[in-house]
Amino acid sequence: MAVYTNIGAEQMAQIIAEFDVGALVSAKGIAEGVSNSNWLVETEGTGSPSQRFILTVYESRTDIGDLPFFLGLLDHLADHGCPVPRTIHDRDNRPFRLHEGKALALIEFLPGVSVSEPSAAQARAVGAALAQTHLAAASYDAHRDNDMGLATWRALLTDCGEAGLASINPDLGRIINEELPFLADNWPADLPRGVIHADLFPDNVLMRGDDVAGLIDFYFACNDLLAYDVAVTHAAWCFSSDGRRFDTALSHALLEGYESVRPLADEERRALPILARGAAMRFIATRAYDWLHTPDDALVTRKDPLAFARRLAFYADPANSGIFAGGPDGTQTETE
Amino acid sequence: MAVYTNIGAEQMAQIIAEFDVGALVSAKGIAEGVSNSNWLVETEGTGSPSQRFILTVYESRTDIGDLPFFLGLLDHLADHGCPVPRTIHDRDNRPFRLHEGKALALIEFLPGVSVSEPSAAQARAVGAALAQTHLAAASYDAHRDNDMGLATWRALLTDCGEAGLASINPDLGRIINEELPFLADNWPADLPRGVIHADLFPDNVLMRGDDVAGLIDFYFACNDLLAYDVAVTHAAWCFSSDGRRFDTALSHALLEGYESVRPLADEERRALPILARGAAMRFIATRAYDWLHTPDDALVTRKDPLAFARRLAFYADPANSGIFAGGPDGTQTETE
Repeated sequence: MAVYTNIGAEQMAQIIAEFDVGALVSAKGIAEGVSNSNWLVETEGTGSPSQRFILTVYESRTDIGDLPFFLGLLDHLADHGCPVPRTIHDRDNRPFRLHEGKALALIEFLPGVSVSEPSAAQARAVGAALAQTHLAAASYDAHRDNDMGLATWRALLTDCGEAGLASINPDLGRIINEELPFLADNWPADLPRGVIHADLFPDNVLMRGDDVAGLIDFYFACNDLLAYDVAVTHAAWCFSSDGRRFDTALSHALLEGYESVRPLADEERRALPILARGAAMRFIATRAYDWLHTPDDALVTRKDPLAFARRLAFYADPANSGIFAGGPDGTQTETE
Repeated sequence: MAVYTNIGAEQMAQIIAEFDVGALVSAKGIAEGVSNSNWLVETEGTGSPSQRFILTVYESRTDIGDLPFFLGLLDHLADHGCPVPRTIHDRDNRPFRLHEGKALALIEFLPGVSVSEPSAAQARAVGAALAQTHLAAASYDAHRDNDMGLATWRALLTDCGEAGLASINPDLGRIINEELPFLADNWPADLPRGVIHADLFPDNVLMRGDDVAGLIDFYFACNDLLAYDVAVTHAAWCFSSDGRRFDTALSHALLEGYESVRPLADEERRALPILARGAAMRFIATRAYDWLHTPDDALVTRKDPLAFARRLAFYADPANSGIFAGGPDGTQTETE
């Protein structure tokens, strides 16, 4: 949570004037987004009494070359009725502009809150919304490879080094060294593909009650296996954040919600256990890397890689092999 | 700029439910306020379609015992037509609540931006708004001593130590050692007193065009000389932020705006040069203290004490003695 770029009121007014949204009324830097700077901006609107937007300035982690894919995807999904914010194009119809060497975009503000303890009804709604984007994105004609796949996990974890991983947890290196070859040997290839969000944590969903008001932060979106997105979302929603407690009711609701819109093929459902292990490994890799490369006193709160090592252990345990096939509702399982 | 306290969506909804403002719709941590945590909160409203508020959680720097004075002052000033946000009282009519040992208050949101390069028209409007609060607060019956007066400046600077001050600038210790006794010997006593804002920097004023939409952040408000508040506001508005450039047009406009609402008595006007030197010393003291006590790598940007040493030199220079008596508009003077 941070605002890395400083923009004065006069500069902000000039930036906003490049869009046909009325004059700037208010701009508050918001403590959201780990790697970009964001403002909640209000304007006089054009026609309506006021309008609100998120202004994002993309810092070094976001590749400007990917912005047309991400921002165009928002427009495509919104056009197809998905609950995602639209990109506001500037007066020259550009989806982003450059400001002092950095890209910035103005994106529709959607009211809602990111829950930290989701209910089953909310998980169901998120599953349905995810499936809706999978169907809608089938007609999106841009393409972006997943640069956060198995090869990247391996590269990040190699960079961490044996000693680095051991400094996080004595067993972590061994677990990873066993798991990575297993994933490489067993990763499914022939499942339905499409555009996936790839990072649909509760942080990236705005809820109003039990309804999804917005899916946001598509900055990992890419083309990959649709069922892998289901697995990522499962890992993100169905555990306590520390990974110590699995919630069967949330798991059921999420899958049920997804299948109410897009039923999984048999081979997708069968692949979910390994895809979920991969999803856990993806977040172990980035979290371990960030853990070892973030100074202790940095602005950003480090996220514990072990929270996903616990998920990995849960998904890999044969005793839990039934969770993707269905099971009794409303129970919680200790993962260790 | 920071959010020091973490509040999840579910907790936030519970907090907001303690106020009669409708259910929580959105809450964004905002990067404002150096010493408190702030959220821009939106609710469904009660009657109106939506309502917006600033939720402030007071961190250690704010004394809970002072909150009734600060929050009551907002209500009093708003009742008397001043452009300040109202305090929203909870269902038990309390102006603040306790949350996990910290006080929190819900305050009306006023749209507007804080300018960084004010125009003369804006300075005039701010002067008038300041005078308006001085008149309106005359009937406010609470009292709070100024705990940021000469004795505190001396204590803060003593704590900095000779070596500490020298590490900021080789001349700073000598300047302070000459100035503090001068201020003590010459500080006026018999000027009109009342409730002052005491920290009315551009950051603490929300503008819409040339109009003042809101005066905010009254957490230094206290009873003291009204003309001292004029001097603080003058030091805050009439220079480039680094203190290197004085803007005669802003100075004129600010004083003219103030006097359009509350004409200064002759003795107040005569006292402005020394009050302005005191205002400069007040910010030298707190900035030098914070400079030496803030770790290099802290979240908060350190503010340069020398920016106010330059103002002090400007105010103390006999060549500038005429600025509070009037002079040619539209000119800028290099302060060193």
